[in-house]
Amino acid sequence: MENLENSTDCKETVSPLNNSGSILNSTVSHHDGKAMGFVLVHAGAGYHSESKAKEYKHVCKRACQRAVDRLRAGGLALEAVTAALIELEDSPFTNAGTGSNLNLSGEIECDASIMDGKSLNYGAVGALSGIKNPVLVARRLLSETQKGKLSAGRIPPCFLVGKGAEQWAISHGIPACPTEKMTTKFSLSGYKRNKRKMELAEQVETKRKRQSCGHENDFGCLEPVGDIMVEGEENNSACLDTVGAVVVDRDGNVAAAVSSGGLAMKHPGRVGQAAHYGCGCWAENARDVSLYSTAVSTSGSGEHLIRTMLARECSTAMQAENAHQALLEAMQNKFISSPFLAGEDCVLGGVIVLRCCTCGEAQRSEDIQALLVEFLWSHTTESMCVGYMSAQDSKPR
Amino acid sequence: MENLENSTDCKETVSPLNNSGSILNSTVSHHDGKAMGFVLVHAGAGYHSESKAKEYKHVCKRACQRAVDRLRAGGLALEAVTAALIELEDSPFTNAGTGSNLNLSGEIECDASIMDGKSLNYGAVGALSGIKNPVLVARRLLSETQKGKLSAGRIPPCFLVGKGAEQWAISHGIPACPTEKMTTKFSLSGYKRNKRKMELAEQVETKRKRQSCGHENDFGCLEPVGDIMVEGEENNSACLDTVGAVVVDRDGNVAAAVSSGGLAMKHPGRVGQAAHYGCGCWAENARDVSLYSTAVSTSGSGEHLIRTMLARECSTAMQAENAHQALLEAMQNKFISSPFLAGEDCVLGGVIVLRCCTCGEAQRSEDIQALLVEFLWSHTTESMCVGYMSAQDSKPR
Repeated sequence: MENLENSTDCKETVSPLNNSGSILNSTVSHHDGKAMGFVLVHAGAGYHSESKAKEYKHVCKRACQRAVDRLRAGGLALEAVTAALIELEDSPFTNAGTGSNLNLSGEIECDASIMDGKSLNYGAVGALSGIKNPVLVARRLLSETQKGKLSAGRIPPCFLVGKGAEQWAISHGIPACPTEKMTTKFSLSGYKRNKRKMELAEQVETKRKRQSCGHENDFGCLEPVGDIMVEGEENNSACLDTVGAVVVDRDGNVAAAVSSGGLAMKHPGRVGQAAHYGCGCWAENARDVSLYSTAVSTSGSGEHLIRTMLARECSTAMQAENAHQALLEAMQNKFISSPFLAGEDCVLGGVIVLRCCTCGEAQRSEDIQALLVEFLWSHTTESMCVGYMSAQDSKPR
Repeated sequence: MENLENSTDCKETVSPLNNSGSILNSTVSHHDGKAMGFVLVHAGAGYHSESKAKEYKHVCKRACQRAVDRLRAGGLALEAVTAALIELEDSPFTNAGTGSNLNLSGEIECDASIMDGKSLNYGAVGALSGIKNPVLVARRLLSETQKGKLSAGRIPPCFLVGKGAEQWAISHGIPACPTEKMTTKFSLSGYKRNKRKMELAEQVETKRKRQSCGHENDFGCLEPVGDIMVEGEENNSACLDTVGAVVVDRDGNVAAAVSSGGLAMKHPGRVGQAAHYGCGCWAENARDVSLYSTAVSTSGSGEHLIRTMLARECSTAMQAENAHQALLEAMQNKFISSPFLAGEDCVLGGVIVLRCCTCGEAQRSEDIQALLVEFLWSHTTESMCVGYMSAQDSKPR
């Protein structure tokens, strides 16, 4: 661990993992008593075309700013992470909320979840249609859990799906939003192109057995990248990614959230990692001073992230001394080479990770509540779009 | 670990856990070369009335017999566990498939999942209506995953919910079943009584803040037990529980499954632990000879079992030398006293656990492929209904 002298400073290193194609970025940030928190966001692991990269950067910056605004106003990590997610979901360029990938039937069905490191409470929605900000429903489920039991001693739900989730949201004051309003020209044109390509691929494939994605690319069909599908060579407009954020507030509470429109052309009712406990996001405050508080948000092939429980695995790994090394090993052993994905040839995913403590030099000073924040991201995909900002920074990076 | 001399023998111990109310039963069974596998089933952790206990026993016995029939015919663990689950779901007395609890709208919405310890593949359905045997859909999702990618390189889903899951099932040849056929006089009369009691409770509660379930019982309302609701004093006909099974076949492969109608009077769209990876069931073949193969199936308050990932935690714990002690500690530290349930006052659940290896004395003989099977169950609820049978036994216990 590196403990920088200046009040907020960052050092960034990039080191590709041996033999795996995984990329890791890690940064250590030292906050002093004036620190009011930190946010790290992602707009997905996948392939980001040059033309879209600018848009992704902008939305990541705005999301960081929203979270920091909340933190500066004294908001908790949970509030800040929600604010970041709303901004990310509202962008027509991300695969979450407005602009989500369309499923096989041409509908939007969103997954989202949120976790509070302080209470360890959790809320999630899956295959949710007709709500502009799925993260708000997950957030509300979490809040309702904290209020205790429902009438007649019923345990409040932490995970709702489909029509029932939509009805619950509306009955709890979250406004309905027509699917048409959430569909963009990008998602619609992507759907149409994907549908044509799928039909073509199916005509060819009826003469063949199912093959691995490597073979399928031989005849120019779709390729799964991240939570999305990117058309092979010429056109990347369907490249719309899962979003997420991790936050620590000035009291050292962590929170994490994730939101996704899921795989393009997914079967209706398919739920991915973004709605799966331990898979899409994880946040856990340190239970004693010898431990780190950790927050994780993932992106990538939903089924792979579910079966490896990657968010929780990365959180657990983050208790090791060397965060950089621990994340590299977790990505290699718990994801790329995981026995749970033994038969898979395209293991695609990415994580953003934050850990913090008041350990080391920070403990020496009694007056200043110093917080050491380390943040990292790693991905097996070609690129991953991230942004970060300290509450002391004037602008996001 | 105890290694009994006779080819199939059992020793049972019952030891209530200190200060927790948790009950643990553990049994060791030694199989020789003629052994063709073993099954352990449950019909839920909760409160089982004397009048219903007989019915539960019968269905557990039939489920064991179905699984053993498959094992004797050379079937794999995955096939045997599916056969057991179908029998458990078809019983009108269990809270799974036919006879499931009705939700707030008076509908049946089922959760089920299955895991194969050999391939580590997994399939799950949540909030599924209109299919008689939800486990068959979970099983089929698992099989489809094993076939590799779908057309155009799409990753097959491992988790489907709601209407989309129903459509997928029907399009894969699993017949639709009208909800009326799955509703029993027990589930319907339970629904009507619960609805009246809820309305009464809500009238009283509008004058109060939400309270813990202990207080709520003061005015005679419903009490959640296991995945279900049991009416306070006089009538236990709503006592219908989640079901599950764990199996090892003659090759030492393990499999686990779970199926549930969920909490009575749950909100439509609520998904419980039975459809949650790592929470409802877990099965993992030993990756080397120093490890155990493990299989786990859970029952109880779905939200508590999700937030503690109890199935996977118990599986991990089962690598300890003393299985009995390990399960007691897991139930205490990972469930009853879990930091993830810090605010909860009624932590209700149960697990059935199986582990096996060819270690110890069994390794000495070269000709005989001996298998040491240990099976245990533990619950924090008043009772848990289990049955077990070796492929060599003439009848289930």
